[in-house]
Amino acid sequence: MAAVVAATRWWQLLLVLSAAGMGASGAHAGNAYTPQEIVGGIPDSEQLLPELLKKAGYVSKIVGKWHLGHRPQFHPLKHGFDEWFGSPNCHFGPYDNKARPNIPVYRDWEMVGRYYEEFPINLKTGEANLTQIYLQEALDFIKRQARHHPFFLYWAVDATHAPVYASKPFLGTSQRGRYGDAVREIDDSIGKILELLQDLHVADNTFVFFTSDNGAALISAPEQGGSNGPFLCGKQTTFEGGMREPALAWWPGHVTAGQVSHQLGSIMDLFTTSLALAGLTPPSDRAIDGLNLLPTLLQGRLMDRPIFYYRGDTLMASTLGQHKAHFWTWTNSWENFRQGIDFCPGQNVSGVTTHNLEDHTKLPLIFHLGRDPGERFPLSFASAEYQEALSRITSVVQQHQEALVPAQPQLNVCNWAVMNWAPPGCEKLGKCLTPPESIPKKCLWSH
Amino acid sequence: MAAVVAATRWWQLLLVLSAAGMGASGAHAGNAYTPQEIVGGIPDSEQLLPELLKKAGYVSKIVGKWHLGHRPQFHPLKHGFDEWFGSPNCHFGPYDNKARPNIPVYRDWEMVGRYYEEFPINLKTGEANLTQIYLQEALDFIKRQARHHPFFLYWAVDATHAPVYASKPFLGTSQRGRYGDAVREIDDSIGKILELLQDLHVADNTFVFFTSDNGAALISAPEQGGSNGPFLCGKQTTFEGGMREPALAWWPGHVTAGQVSHQLGSIMDLFTTSLALAGLTPPSDRAIDGLNLLPTLLQGRLMDRPIFYYRGDTLMASTLGQHKAHFWTWTNSWENFRQGIDFCPGQNVSGVTTHNLEDHTKLPLIFHLGRDPGERFPLSFASAEYQEALSRITSVVQQHQEALVPAQPQLNVCNWAVMNWAPPGCEKLGKCLTPPESIPKKCLWSH
Repeated sequence: MAAVVAATRWWQLLLVLSAAGMGASGAHAGNAYTPQEIVGGIPDSEQLLPELLKKAGYVSKIVGKWHLGHRPQFHPLKHGFDEWFGSPNCHFGPYDNKARPNIPVYRDWEMVGRYYEEFPINLKTGEANLTQIYLQEALDFIKRQARHHPFFLYWAVDATHAPVYASKPFLGTSQRGRYGDAVREIDDSIGKILELLQDLHVADNTFVFFTSDNGAALISAPEQGGSNGPFLCGKQTTFEGGMREPALAWWPGHVTAGQVSHQLGSIMDLFTTSLALAGLTPPSDRAIDGLNLLPTLLQGRLMDRPIFYYRGDTLMASTLGQHKAHFWTWTNSWENFRQGIDFCPGQNVSGVTTHNLEDHTKLPLIFHLGRDPGERFPLSFASAEYQEALSRITSVVQQHQEALVPAQPQLNVCNWAVMNWAPPGCEKLGKCLTPPESIPKKCLWSH
Repeated sequence: MAAVVAATRWWQLLLVLSAAGMGASGAHAGNAYTPQEIVGGIPDSEQLLPELLKKAGYVSKIVGKWHLGHRPQFHPLKHGFDEWFGSPNCHFGPYDNKARPNIPVYRDWEMVGRYYEEFPINLKTGEANLTQIYLQEALDFIKRQARHHPFFLYWAVDATHAPVYASKPFLGTSQRGRYGDAVREIDDSIGKILELLQDLHVADNTFVFFTSDNGAALISAPEQGGSNGPFLCGKQTTFEGGMREPALAWWPGHVTAGQVSHQLGSIMDLFTTSLALAGLTPPSDRAIDGLNLLPTLLQGRLMDRPIFYYRGDTLMASTLGQHKAHFWTWTNSWENFRQGIDFCPGQNVSGVTTHNLEDHTKLPLIFHLGRDPGERFPLSFASAEYQEALSRITSVVQQHQEALVPAQPQLNVCNWAVMNWAPPGCEKLGKCLTPPESIPKKCLWSH
């Protein structure tokens, strides 16, 4: 059994062993984020998918963005991966390498260059060859492994993350602007990966899953952000537009082509599902939130399950069946909003898309996502449907909260001295920079 | 060649010979509407599709709502149809038959009952057998005609129009509430129509087209209205949510199954396309706005064409290529809006979803519908893209306006005496009502 897992950005998979694996930053209902000045990262106590897959003889590679900490102890090759080509942080920049270094690109243990330097991204035209490089890394890995070992490829491309980029043959080819060009290049690349699996005659033995880790970032719309269709708001919020994405599974001879499932999944499920595919079981010493999706994928079974929507360590909302209850509502602060940062452009649902953090824990706002996928029409508090939904959701939320184990916060301490000044390998390239004085401080992330 | 045309509500097809065929009501940018007190209707000077199809030996039937005038001279059998089962107006009600009569249901020339009387609709449960009755009428007509004559069936069902209804076997079967139940029943019925065409071995000889005449009516959402997905606002507006619908064409052996076309069509095109299928040409004595879509349907060709968005006789907006220019913006009045009538629930695009009728004719708002299908991000007036789009759109709007011929207004005079008090056939049923005194007045329709 080999597994290729492709995602536009997919780090939750690596976090799934405990809902509290990475403690949030201090701000109430503030989003989790790992800038390059972050001191923390993925703790050793977490057992990541590639670590566990090793037991079944898998060779694992991550291509693309890691984003689980960039200091040496958080390096993906210290957490189960055998190979890495990609970056520890977002491709933001360019920076001046004085106040802030450009983000390094690694091959395995060492950096091989930096974004905007050896790996250029033209912010004006949107041109960058990164998706093509990531594609070659994927094809090369598959060719080397497919006939000898079971393999796990985590292909975490980020061309659709602002600043959005595409290579020259794709730029200007879509009606959807630069974002559409980037999607077309990713689509074309996935096609080449699937073609190779078929050419190597391992397609019927390889499970491929494609999804995104969040809804479209509407702050970057329309030129550098996607669309969330009928859903409310975008990335950074706990409305459906921030959290709900489609997914595609491909496994010729096993997953029936062209079928549509309404099973509600979570990226956490890929941990459990991948282990099941490899004939392994999840660790038994901790609560595991992911479901094994194989009954859905192979037999079309539908499983009811709750989903918990967090912002930092605040449980903002929860779904069960078709009902979603909001315990807290918040898009972003008035201060941010007045500066033009809008997570819900063109959308405004009174009492729902609030710019103050509103406490509904006593009387949650409840929507029926079947009738009202856009979260525009809260159920009447007086209705029997509301009362029944509330009672069912309250019960699963209690169960969930009782099972939570507090974790060591990883995202609350920042320090400019820990940024990517001198990653391993910098000396060979003559690209080591001198860090500033070490001053730990509370991380600031206003969302 | 036979033609089945199925639509949820589709009267524009019958209007297409002249863009000014039915003059609008007096209010500037007010929507056109034909309540049962309307004095006007479809003029004899208009040549309707079934009238023209007669020349090629077609027998034509309308099943469902007509809505082009209910007085004797406007009867569908006076305008080319050979059979009718359905109603002249919406299935609103129940009325008291004193201030306002219930809407009659006709079989051919005579009424056979009224809504909420012989044809019950349970407003509380949503139960009505109307779609089943309309289905049987369609199947019966096809069986009688298919082997003897070419036929044209205009199947204008309205279960998805508020008050939304479904028959008992479909009620409560969808996750989408009553609206979803109605859609499922229509879908099931279309399936039975297609099945019959195959059983009769006329499928490869029958062109079937399915679409809607407007976007979802969000004033009735979520329980009794659809969703416009990513599009802005709903029915009654000239934003994409009010005007843009998908369509399905079915013609085994001719239209390739499963293909998707991005051709921009208009219901007016079905007039021209249907004539072409029947080997006929449109009248040459007037301007015809519809395109022949056969090159798109049969060979996948894409044709660029402008679309003009009217509200009454006000040209509100126009698209050309991917660009849409708004010359006027208006959702509804503050007065209506404050009463809770909202055509854009949960949506609010500053300067775009206005409650005053805003004049942008000097400097239109322009959107790129490829990058921004939700009309949320107007192009900058200073951009080269804006200037170029404006110049191209201005030119086609001028051409369009020069070709317009003013028509006799049909929708501006109302009179309670002309309502459906005593339709033909009422005496046989003992269902004739006495009309009030004839007092012509200006029609009121606040949208």
